[in-house]
Amino acid sequence: MEKLYGNAVVGQSGGPTAAINATLSGVIRGALAAAEKGVIGKVYGMRNGIEGLCEERLVDLGRIFNSEQHFTDLEHTPAAALGSCRKKLPDPNENPLSFEFIVDIFKKYDIRYFFYIGGNDSMDTVQKLSEYTKSVGYEMRVMGVPKTIDNDLWGTDHTPGFGSAAKYIATSVKEIICDCAVYTTKAVTITEIMGRDAGWLTAAAALPRLSGGIGPDYVYLPEREFDMNSFFSDIRTALKAHPNVVIAVSEGVRFADGRYVSENGKVDAFGHKQLSGTGTVLAEALRDEVGCKTRAVEFNTSQRCAAHIASATDIRESVAVGKKAVEFALRGVSGHVMIFIRSKVGYKITIDSVPVEEVANKVRSVPDEFITPSGNNVTEKCLDYLRPLIEGEVKFRHEAGLPVHFKI
Amino acid sequence: MEKLYGNAVVGQSGGPTAAINATLSGVIRGALAAAEKGVIGKVYGMRNGIEGLCEERLVDLGRIFNSEQHFTDLEHTPAAALGSCRKKLPDPNENPLSFEFIVDIFKKYDIRYFFYIGGNDSMDTVQKLSEYTKSVGYEMRVMGVPKTIDNDLWGTDHTPGFGSAAKYIATSVKEIICDCAVYTTKAVTITEIMGRDAGWLTAAAALPRLSGGIGPDYVYLPEREFDMNSFFSDIRTALKAHPNVVIAVSEGVRFADGRYVSENGKVDAFGHKQLSGTGTVLAEALRDEVGCKTRAVEFNTSQRCAAHIASATDIRESVAVGKKAVEFALRGVSGHVMIFIRSKVGYKITIDSVPVEEVANKVRSVPDEFITPSGNNVTEKCLDYLRPLIEGEVKFRHEAGLPVHFKI
Repeated sequence: MEKLYGNAVVGQSGGPTAAINATLSGVIRGALAAAEKGVIGKVYGMRNGIEGLCEERLVDLGRIFNSEQHFTDLEHTPAAALGSCRKKLPDPNENPLSFEFIVDIFKKYDIRYFFYIGGNDSMDTVQKLSEYTKSVGYEMRVMGVPKTIDNDLWGTDHTPGFGSAAKYIATSVKEIICDCAVYTTKAVTITEIMGRDAGWLTAAAALPRLSGGIGPDYVYLPEREFDMNSFFSDIRTALKAHPNVVIAVSEGVRFADGRYVSENGKVDAFGHKQLSGTGTVLAEALRDEVGCKTRAVEFNTSQRCAAHIASATDIRESVAVGKKAVEFALRGVSGHVMIFIRSKVGYKITIDSVPVEEVANKVRSVPDEFITPSGNNVTEKCLDYLRPLIEGEVKFRHEAGLPVHFKI
Repeated sequence: MEKLYGNAVVGQSGGPTAAINATLSGVIRGALAAAEKGVIGKVYGMRNGIEGLCEERLVDLGRIFNSEQHFTDLEHTPAAALGSCRKKLPDPNENPLSFEFIVDIFKKYDIRYFFYIGGNDSMDTVQKLSEYTKSVGYEMRVMGVPKTIDNDLWGTDHTPGFGSAAKYIATSVKEIICDCAVYTTKAVTITEIMGRDAGWLTAAAALPRLSGGIGPDYVYLPEREFDMNSFFSDIRTALKAHPNVVIAVSEGVRFADGRYVSENGKVDAFGHKQLSGTGTVLAEALRDEVGCKTRAVEFNTSQRCAAHIASATDIRESVAVGKKAVEFALRGVSGHVMIFIRSKVGYKITIDSVPVEEVANKVRSVPDEFITPSGNNVTEKCLDYLRPLIEGEVKFRHEAGLPVHFKI
């Protein structure tokens, strides 16, 4: 493969995670090292992803990052330090104008390397840009680096960002189980967890079982139909065994007819449809039916930004996959997405890449072997898969008792 | 003061915190050391506070705690390892039977030292037990050790447990501010924080200002009347300055007429009064009035049990105050509550005690000098007060990537 000299640009897209900045750090580390060797030119960051690129909101990252401290601070900063966007590019065959526009910007800034860190929609952008630039003969290397707390990307053992979200959830559930155990009166606590289509994060709520032996009584994933009567029956069984029942439920569970449990069918005094959280709907139904004290705990935004309890494994891998994307691009790879491959025995991760079309717009669900036959819990095999992803504690700087975050 | 030989009992009461077990550890450390010297006899733990004492559910703690590891694990375990209760003792003048019953148990187990770790209601128990035992001539030492995340106990600079809850809130708010900053579209995020009557925890949401300079735009405490029009005006002003507005609001804010903001006045299709969180009510009102994207984030149970992000200062002081309570009791103090006194300059804490009647059933609000004249923020002085309470990071053991908790 012939060497390609030019500038590089990196961007972040989609919902934030606790590890997307670690991947950004990896890309910047790799690209600046290459720039130092004279293999590439400048390293730009696009503000707010492809949206900022179109508005030429570019920052020269080589002028910002000039000490190891900058990188390590960035690696422990949640969300997207360059800003993010939800812009989806049109079909280049139907609307080539946007693409001509973008290629003009590439030419203006002599950009030959494009790194995009994001989820499914971002991989779609990578695919379209890669195909379009090839079709018009503009030589460049377009690389996608995945991130999503949902772990639902096809083709990779797991996604950067998932391990940290899983660690936050497992830790919080473990603490809440302690909290629930203090009283002797019967009570059910329902923890509601993110993941509309895939139950990976909800499955992580069961991890405390490997640490002290106590986990939630039941775990309900969106991969299985939710049945209200079976749910009541589960809870009655659990309450016979002990007074403090804790369950984990995905926000995305649905009934057999496809309706989300969160569509509770109620309307307010003005006839507006009421939207409640899944946990709240279940807590209310349970109070009416079983008559015990219930409580819904919704794990909110912190699921995707609790960098203070990030998984050291996740952060390390997220940096590594960013660096590797640069390495691959320099070797001539383009139109690819980076993936993790897990060793058959133990936990050893190899980083590789696959053509983006093999990955984009597919959802990876929790497989059958990870869910118990009864459909209301996860298996040992599932916990074995999850465990290494949350191992290790991050170390970061503090100021006034709070984590130091890096601002670009 | 004459020496008093006998057994000791310790219990926990009221809502859990991340530090109440640290205080329990301090009491057990102090009492077992005294037992070793032959100054006192056995050290019992009462299960579920005074409720378990009445049912003679006592555990011999000397048989459980036999290594330093046990103590340090307990100090990093959230909630109440002995279990808790919400039982309030009656007035001994009106109903002396309960007290006779309890004194009979004291006699049966030769209990002469009673340590009760709890909030306002627990201090009421301490006061009544102290007065009653004195009145019937049963010599014993009754000591209260405060705990509450709410920081609203009278007579002490701050309460054990508050610093850890404040650190969790400040850290989470800081991370959420990062999360909110990634998009360019106008949006308001409302974080709802515990504290029905006192705004201490909500004030802690402003601490990120000391660490990077960015905090929530406004902070609404229950110490000030909440006015919806001023609120809309505040938000409009903030949205002119930057697109991503984050505010912190206490769950306990009320309108001028005394109604809680969370009483939104809506009824559902069945005529039932709708109960929403304060954050949700404000998010909906704002959406209707200002028309921007809004989001409510309720910090849930984790506020009182997120031991993984506890304040090292809080945990250290919580252990120390437990030990000191034993020391004071051995010196003859009884019917007292332990307190923290802060040095005039810098941050140095002296532990002392005051008669329980000076403290019980009073609420300490955030003082005027800690709230800006506009009533929608906190002052530098407030942050100066809060800062040392969240300093320092706890170190604890992990298993399978999760904190190890101690189970009694």
